[in-house]
Amino acid sequence: MTQEALFDQIKFKKSFLCVGLDIDLEKIPSHLKKQEDPIFTFAKEIIDATHSYAVAYKPNLAFFESYGVQGWKAFEKITGYLNEHYSDHFIIADAKRGDIGNTAARYAKAFFETYEVDAVTVAPYMGQDAVEPFLTFKDKYAILLTLTSNPGAFDFQFTEAEGQKLYEKVLRTSLEWKGSDQLMYVVGATKAEALASIRKIVPNAFLLVPGIGAQGGSLEAVSQAGLNKQCGLLVNSSRGIIYKSQDKDFAIAAAAEAQKLQEEMAVYLDQKGII
Amino acid sequence: MTQEALFDQIKFKKSFLCVGLDIDLEKIPSHLKKQEDPIFTFAKEIIDATHSYAVAYKPNLAFFESYGVQGWKAFEKITGYLNEHYSDHFIIADAKRGDIGNTAARYAKAFFETYEVDAVTVAPYMGQDAVEPFLTFKDKYAILLTLTSNPGAFDFQFTEAEGQKLYEKVLRTSLEWKGSDQLMYVVGATKAEALASIRKIVPNAFLLVPGIGAQGGSLEAVSQAGLNKQCGLLVNSSRGIIYKSQDKDFAIAAAAEAQKLQEEMAVYLDQKGII
Repeated sequence: MTQEALFDQIKFKKSFLCVGLDIDLEKIPSHLKKQEDPIFTFAKEIIDATHSYAVAYKPNLAFFESYGVQGWKAFEKITGYLNEHYSDHFIIADAKRGDIGNTAARYAKAFFETYEVDAVTVAPYMGQDAVEPFLTFKDKYAILLTLTSNPGAFDFQFTEAEGQKLYEKVLRTSLEWKGSDQLMYVVGATKAEALASIRKIVPNAFLLVPGIGAQGGSLEAVSQAGLNKQCGLLVNSSRGIIYKSQDKDFAIAAAAEAQKLQEEMAVYLDQKGII
Repeated sequence: MTQEALFDQIKFKKSFLCVGLDIDLEKIPSHLKKQEDPIFTFAKEIIDATHSYAVAYKPNLAFFESYGVQGWKAFEKITGYLNEHYSDHFIIADAKRGDIGNTAARYAKAFFETYEVDAVTVAPYMGQDAVEPFLTFKDKYAILLTLTSNPGAFDFQFTEAEGQKLYEKVLRTSLEWKGSDQLMYVVGATKAEALASIRKIVPNAFLLVPGIGAQGGSLEAVSQAGLNKQCGLLVNSSRGIIYKSQDKDFAIAAAAEAQKLQEEMAVYLDQKGII
């Protein structure tokens, strides 16, 4: 998907919501557990209920992998379902991959060709040749971990060196890589105070922002600091939407929660003159 | 597997060789491609031929993932085969995972319980809570990316801050984490000159050293700087062994190459008084 098509969706839906699919068999409603493929069935119901309010879906690979071959089959069915029925949605494989050149190329091929997702989250520690293979596929994106929402972010990401913090160095260095216009960046909502300085370094890039809801980040603070002329934000909520209810009404509850976030997003988009 | 059992294997076989299973369907001998599961068949033949010279096997997840569900099935069969027939070998899932706490816990569970590997390679960028969930499983290990063998290693890993390089900070910080005695570290063979200083920070830890052979690192230099009293090294070779021949004699050729490395390792183990 082109970034223009993504922006068109954002304007059309007045939303920059990404729904995170962190599907945990222990948390899905019990009546679904009797199904042949409960992971896929749950995801399908969530997607059918929320697609009008969301512009992106983000399956979290760790959850699928933890169920072995069964999980991978479900992941394949979910991306297939999205591509068939909701192809205007942006699909992010939240895989946080990062490996040397020939291996990175394998990961890129798997996600972009086998599963046909639009973007993959990628770790920066191994540098340029671990990321560039993801930037050679037309209209596909690598979303680079920059400033993450978890407590461990303080261990290394804020390390001061050469007059800048490590996450700022990651941003600036990545701009020199081949295909850097296909880079997006992960910036945790719990670090909203850093968003303004990040926007100065990458004024035009899309930022994927996890951490609102369960992790405590504020949608308003993120929007104020992060929105640019082409929106430039994808704000993710996972648990706050998909497990809002763990009963038979889970899909209705998820839709209501997604709508609530969409309506709040519409206000910020309007305030910034984007819609 | 305990570290003592691993050291016993090293002494018994006079080897600290890890064979990397980077299985690429385009590189395996053509007569195997007609098999129902060519990935597993190739791996099985390589394992059967090299197990006397190797103490560890390292399936590279990117290669398996790039074949989708078929690849994951093959990975499951390979770890199952190793655990059934060669349970004295240390199995490393080279996955380079790194994600926030609840997600990291999922990955740890998948690799340690579903696939029953002994260790998983893990990326440090997200810090403590991305790694600690891997350190709560008895006799299982996280192998932390520290100084990698690829060119991109120079982008961030050598960043000077607070009087030390980032990879040194990763080492020192990780020692404060809960379960740090279950940490091992990835140090590329192409950075052997840094090994001596790394040994001072982690005198007792096992180091997984990729990068000899195809990537140009020297086994002698790595051994001189990296060996400690309990060996403390697992040196990996992938392509140099498994694709030594791409013809019908591939398993014999792989065994000969593994034996050559084992015999060189025996010399260094003897010189250091370890065997």
